[in-house]
Amino acid sequence: MTLPETNAQILLASRPRGAATLDNFRLVEAEMPALADGEVRVRHQWLSIDPYMRGRMNDAKSYAAPQALDAVMIGQTVGVVVESRSPQWAVGDAVVHMGGWQQYSVVAGDDRRGLRRIDTTVVPASAYLGAVGMPGVTAWYGLMKLIAPKPGETVVVSAAAGAVGSAVGQLAKARGLRAVGIAGGPEKCAWVQSIGFDACIDHRAHPDARALGSALREACPDGVDGYFENVGGAILDAVLGRMNAFGRIALCGMIAGYDGAPIPLAQPHLLLSSRLRVEGFIVTEHPEVWPEALAELAGRVADGSLRYRESIAVGLAEAPAALLGVLAGKNVGKQLVSLG
Amino acid sequence: MTLPETNAQILLASRPRGAATLDNFRLVEAEMPALADGEVRVRHQWLSIDPYMRGRMNDAKSYAAPQALDAVMIGQTVGVVVESRSPQWAVGDAVVHMGGWQQYSVVAGDDRRGLRRIDTTVVPASAYLGAVGMPGVTAWYGLMKLIAPKPGETVVVSAAAGAVGSAVGQLAKARGLRAVGIAGGPEKCAWVQSIGFDACIDHRAHPDARALGSALREACPDGVDGYFENVGGAILDAVLGRMNAFGRIALCGMIAGYDGAPIPLAQPHLLLSSRLRVEGFIVTEHPEVWPEALAELAGRVADGSLRYRESIAVGLAEAPAALLGVLAGKNVGKQLVSLG
Repeated sequence: MTLPETNAQILLASRPRGAATLDNFRLVEAEMPALADGEVRVRHQWLSIDPYMRGRMNDAKSYAAPQALDAVMIGQTVGVVVESRSPQWAVGDAVVHMGGWQQYSVVAGDDRRGLRRIDTTVVPASAYLGAVGMPGVTAWYGLMKLIAPKPGETVVVSAAAGAVGSAVGQLAKARGLRAVGIAGGPEKCAWVQSIGFDACIDHRAHPDARALGSALREACPDGVDGYFENVGGAILDAVLGRMNAFGRIALCGMIAGYDGAPIPLAQPHLLLSSRLRVEGFIVTEHPEVWPEALAELAGRVADGSLRYRESIAVGLAEAPAALLGVLAGKNVGKQLVSLG
Repeated sequence: MTLPETNAQILLASRPRGAATLDNFRLVEAEMPALADGEVRVRHQWLSIDPYMRGRMNDAKSYAAPQALDAVMIGQTVGVVVESRSPQWAVGDAVVHMGGWQQYSVVAGDDRRGLRRIDTTVVPASAYLGAVGMPGVTAWYGLMKLIAPKPGETVVVSAAAGAVGSAVGQLAKARGLRAVGIAGGPEKCAWVQSIGFDACIDHRAHPDARALGSALREACPDGVDGYFENVGGAILDAVLGRMNAFGRIALCGMIAGYDGAPIPLAQPHLLLSSRLRVEGFIVTEHPEVWPEALAELAGRVADGSLRYRESIAVGLAEAPAALLGVLAGKNVGKQLVSLG
């Protein structure tokens, strides 16, 4: 196989003021460097697009360093080894790693935090960026370790049609819990219910806190014991008001606040009066759970008990628009870019 | 001893609209009922006045049922048995129980959640309502079980001159931690520093979030690992901005919000970006820790390593004003009413 002479890349060109726009990105053609001893070249087949990327575009205090300006946008990729000067890797090996928004990457073969080998014979390659990847493990960790549900409890998840949310509900149902989703629009809600959730609330049909509260009361007649938060803002306020005593909230995403000023929490006193526990987490900081979580997730994808959807944009140049779409809630399930 | 013919009581006469006022209470003289078999009569010597009482005056969803109208205000008391028809109790026994805002109470002698015997030979009787009572155990539980500090960490506590806050800081210092208090006014701060806190921030001298944030930065050069929250509002916002990754917040009181609309939390996204854990608690729901906590607290009061102050109002009729004083932050240390 002959490699092309250049490597298409998307850089962060500028930081957003308010909402991110296509102008914040720049497509360039970079040189293809020669491999040094021990290095591996990977051709990317799939690029993962995730809400956290918006946070990295800011130069603000967060759990991770900001994305550097004029550098390749970070992102997880599934690919195949096309050239190897490492004894650990052979041409043709399927791998997942943080390859970034580009067609090729060069990686040290012995970096333990680098390439991870994947088996694509039973699980589709793209699933390693979704249900059997970071989003799936995120769902598993928040549900099992932070919500830690007891039999008979009710778990609510926002962004329930997303890659994380849909897995949270299906893992909860597999444990005999009541699972209630919150999603935007009737199409997403219909799908959420089709994969086994007991109910799904369309937050667009309940635009104020009072209406959302009523819908939650109906969907959760015994209150809410665990809440997996992917959204924040008014939805968090509404769910807080329905939490049972000693409820647990796993804080995974606050997408509503990324594009500007923080959204205040209206009634923090409920955390005390209902004796709630709220915990924010980043799944990459809990590597100890990955093997157990991935084993369950791969098994459930293989046997069909964990279903997922993908929104696929085609071609690297579409990655910026795909991210803006995710931030606007336009994707259904895991957002990917197919790089061919 | 001859008992009086009537029992002075203070009832909740009306629920506050906004701030509580003296008009919300009514002093009455009630009959002294005869004892039934198995019952005990206790003469109250000390009445505890606590911020939680304001919450009970509302008819709102909280962790406890509201205080009933036209009923004796609830509250913990230290007293002495003056009449007994129970084989378990003798005249002269010193006891602590929820006797309420009245001079005498009648209690079933065999109620395991009722009377608790106390030893006043080494620890002063009034301390069983403070450092060796609910406030002390509240401090112990929040620090040890929720903040669960590791060596070298920094713990911050608000309302640091109060019965709970002063104990939090001294227990933290006894464990080798850096302890920083927040209190209102130079007199309170001077006392907080005199009992061993490394620093105390006068929030009245730093009235906005920016000034408070700067003072926290100076007092906590390594950031904040644990925060014991007795106040809420702007102080919580300021401390949140200084929390280290994986910090823990024990939510014990939200006094600033009791008198009206809830105070929003300005930056809830920090809970996620700093991966914080926030947990609300009520110490009476954790009876398993009381023996261990009380043993340490009594030992430290006896040997002088746990210091406290008391604000004492004299006479039952002063109890409403004492509560309003606590809500306005006028007390220093544990607020008591001496009933003689």
